Amino acid sequence: LYSEKVMDHFMNPRNVGKIEDADGVGEVGNAKCGDIMKIYIKVNDGIITDVKFNTFGCGSAIASSSMATEMIKGKPVSEALELTNKAVAEALDGLPAHKLHCSVLAEEAIKAAIEDYEKKK
Amino acid sequence: LYSEKVMDHFMNPRNVGKIEDADGVGEVGNAKCGDIMKIYIKVNDGIITDVKFNTFGCGSAIASSSMATEMIKGKPVSEALELTNKAVAEALDGLPAHKLHCSVLAEEAIKAAIEDYEKKK
Ligand code: FES
Repeated sequence: LYSEKVMDHFMNPRNVGKIEDADGVGEVGNAKCGDIMKIYIKVNDGIITDVKFNTFGCGSAIASSSMATEMIKGKPVSEALELTNKAVAEALDGLPAHKLHCSVLAEEAIKAAIEDYEKKK
Repeated sequence: LYSEKVMDHFMNPRNVGKIEDADGVGEVGNAKCGDIMKIYIKVNDGIITDVKFNTFGCGSAIASSSMATEMIKGKPVSEALELTNKAVAEALDGLPAHKLHCSVLAEEAIKAAIEDYEKKK
């Protein structure tokens, strides 16, 4: 049902936690399942130097956020804004169709965190 | 958002795993979120002597199954059949309304496991 990469990122999620002095925080909810995703970013010179996430969501949400945060770490903000949930699902070697909505949480929370950062700047 | 009991059963879930020589196995899916719950039971003289669960579902699903399996362990099959997701949510000191559908997974998987056991008997 789930790819090896999904299981790996679910069992050993990267970048779980909170950044106390974050430059941007994004929190979004998923209308379909009711789950919440929170993402914290540190930005330096337009580069995302650190990122952490927190969720009470399902295995697919955890794996997607783990992968998504890995994909934007060290990248310019402008590039992170372009990350789609489709790209995250592909990097995970796919997600079951009925679990794609979980990967949307990560994309939206990253966008919300960057918006929050731009607003504070 | 979540009660202490929910957080405890989420962080330290009881009865996670698989029973190789289970007397009954129940697997159900949640139409709302697409998550799956699998429950294994061992039955001896009409008593549920062991029970384990496995899910890729969210924190609320994990907490509910952890609590539900604790509630039916050592109980007669007939009593386990009467366990409702409402009773499980109450034992957890409540779940957010939009996460009640996750606790339904545990109730239905237990019923499916008992049905499987009755059929095999
Ligand atoms: S959101 Fe799917 S089980 Fe909770």
